[in-house]
Amino acid sequence: MADTLGCETFEHVHVTILAGGSGTRLWPHSRRSRPKQFLNLVGQQSMLVDTVERVLPLVPLERIHVLTGPEHAPLVAEQLPDLPPDNIMVEPSPKGTAPCLGLAALRLFRRTGRPHDVMISLHADHVVQREDRFRDALRAAAAVARNGHIVTIGIIPAYPETGFGYIERADPLPPAANQDAFRVARFTEKPPLERAQQFVASGRFYWNTGYFAWTLGGILDEFRRSLPEVYAHLERMAPADDRAPALDAWEAITPITIDVGIMERANDLAVIPCDLGWSDIGGWAALHDILPGNAEGNVVADGTRHVGIDTANCLIQGTDRLIATVGLEGMIVVDTGDALLVLPKSRAQDVSALVRELRARGLEDYL
Amino acid sequence: MADTLGCETFEHVHVTILAGGSGTRLWPHSRRSRPKQFLNLVGQQSMLVDTVERVLPLVPLERIHVLTGPEHAPLVAEQLPDLPPDNIMVEPSPKGTAPCLGLAALRLFRRTGRPHDVMISLHADHVVQREDRFRDALRAAAAVARNGHIVTIGIIPAYPETGFGYIERADPLPPAANQDAFRVARFTEKPPLERAQQFVASGRFYWNTGYFAWTLGGILDEFRRSLPEVYAHLERMAPADDRAPALDAWEAITPITIDVGIMERANDLAVIPCDLGWSDIGGWAALHDILPGNAEGNVVADGTRHVGIDTANCLIQGTDRLIATVGLEGMIVVDTGDALLVLPKSRAQDVSALVRELRARGLEDYL
Repeated sequence: MADTLGCETFEHVHVTILAGGSGTRLWPHSRRSRPKQFLNLVGQQSMLVDTVERVLPLVPLERIHVLTGPEHAPLVAEQLPDLPPDNIMVEPSPKGTAPCLGLAALRLFRRTGRPHDVMISLHADHVVQREDRFRDALRAAAAVARNGHIVTIGIIPAYPETGFGYIERADPLPPAANQDAFRVARFTEKPPLERAQQFVASGRFYWNTGYFAWTLGGILDEFRRSLPEVYAHLERMAPADDRAPALDAWEAITPITIDVGIMERANDLAVIPCDLGWSDIGGWAALHDILPGNAEGNVVADGTRHVGIDTANCLIQGTDRLIATVGLEGMIVVDTGDALLVLPKSRAQDVSALVRELRARGLEDYL
Repeated sequence: MADTLGCETFEHVHVTILAGGSGTRLWPHSRRSRPKQFLNLVGQQSMLVDTVERVLPLVPLERIHVLTGPEHAPLVAEQLPDLPPDNIMVEPSPKGTAPCLGLAALRLFRRTGRPHDVMISLHADHVVQREDRFRDALRAAAAVARNGHIVTIGIIPAYPETGFGYIERADPLPPAANQDAFRVARFTEKPPLERAQQFVASGRFYWNTGYFAWTLGGILDEFRRSLPEVYAHLERMAPADDRAPALDAWEAITPITIDVGIMERANDLAVIPCDLGWSDIGGWAALHDILPGNAEGNVVADGTRHVGIDTANCLIQGTDRLIATVGLEGMIVVDTGDALLVLPKSRAQDVSALVRELRARGLEDYL
């Protein structure tokens, strides 16, 4: 019955996958020309392809859309050769997630004319280890979205991470597709450690995945209400009548994220809490955490030739060159064709600063 | 007057340079096919060429001899194109320093027929920063050798190094070429730290450089007395009469070092103490110590492209690839064409163990 309901529910569901990130914190593996969503960081195929295959049991390729920038659109087409070309939605320049998702919603509405169709928005560069639970969560999210809510997917926190935003739940909603659902009390930016510890201890806070479900009509109402200027520009990009799309309208938009522009002002927000074995792979430390290590806790990437003496809890990723280490604990060593990175795992977040430094020194070729 | 005396003294002086070492502790830069004496580790030319140029103001190339193995003889000829071919003395296989120096002494005696000629023995893989003082020390060593002593060059210790042997001085000898000279009380193997500290505090101990001076007759007498079996084999290698050299005699020799075989049993030992800015470059830590660092104490090799954030007291040596580091203190990063080494400076001596591990794993191609 649940499955039948699931299939029926997903008849008018569209999935959008945000694939526009630059992934600088995984430099030097992740590059401007091929950021992390296009890399085989975990497993044998890219994270984008993993993301598509993860939803294919629910939604056919015809209703999966990839949102990316012009420089990466060819890479999307290459990695997803069966994706209809119209399903690669190109944002002319980075404007944050709100204009991007708003334009996708408007274009889907223009194509379908169906305000009650559901749009599920995912990210192309996350890992989900429990794929069945993930699809259960999407079934629930779609069902709750049909009931008029803007739905978020929350992850039951495993530890007090300070690098994520949190979603605080309020009153329960009726369960949907056998999943708990709650109203949202508020969104919280990345908290300091003490607050993060309180969040986890309370049992009422979830990591914000940035995965959403809403009806096309519902989200466009929110844009009209909360971001009327952005919405006006988007309407010029995707006009209702026969006027030609004014692609220059995009440049007039002030960048804003969906969290700040829509979520923090929206009514009827809901959250589906779940435990997915989820990671945003927000840097080398997160990648080390998600990948299985050997007896010494070392994660040695496939195809990397590593010889270590007294080397433990390290992430070693290389090419066909030999990487030899002695007396290393908790270090990241990443060797690529033209660049090498060495740093302690505890400094993994500073790779962004390093990338800025490379840019400041004019070493653009390495970015 | 001293110069005149110097020139006169060096009329019948021969220099031998030991260039047979394998230099495994500087892997991956130092390889079996090109060990450290053939590398430009410090400055613009190889340590072997530096060593030859350091003595050329005293001794012409015709009286400089390089002792090496058959696999490296072509490299010696390539790096020293003006060296007479007969001055490359090839030891058929490694037998320790005693047979090697004994054979060199015997061959020089056969060529010159002059037992009172002086032989000075040096190493091809050491750094000497004060070259004038070095030549002053050699002048003194040659003069003391002519007086019938087996002479060693001792370095006034800068700190209690536990990786070197020490020479303890006894009574003073008359100064020679304006240098102090002493009889030797004893040779000491690498001491534990506490003993090394006592050595340094006493003012009577010097680092053993392995540089020697002796007359050809004097050292051959010592071989006959202390290593009669070795000497008999050497005589078959370089016979006094018209018999053909029996090159197979070499294989019958049991390996032994000059320190153990000759020095620890010799009479009339002398030491010339000096302060040369000397290093045996016994590993990456020693190389880091001898090379000038930047404001953060980092030594970045010429031609290495390094970008560091919070990186201090590191040795970074690479190729044309970018090496980026964050939050490193006291680390060694050495990147070569086919292999990369990362380890803390404090573990630099363990590179030998690493090389053994590579051999044990059959990774001979990297040695």
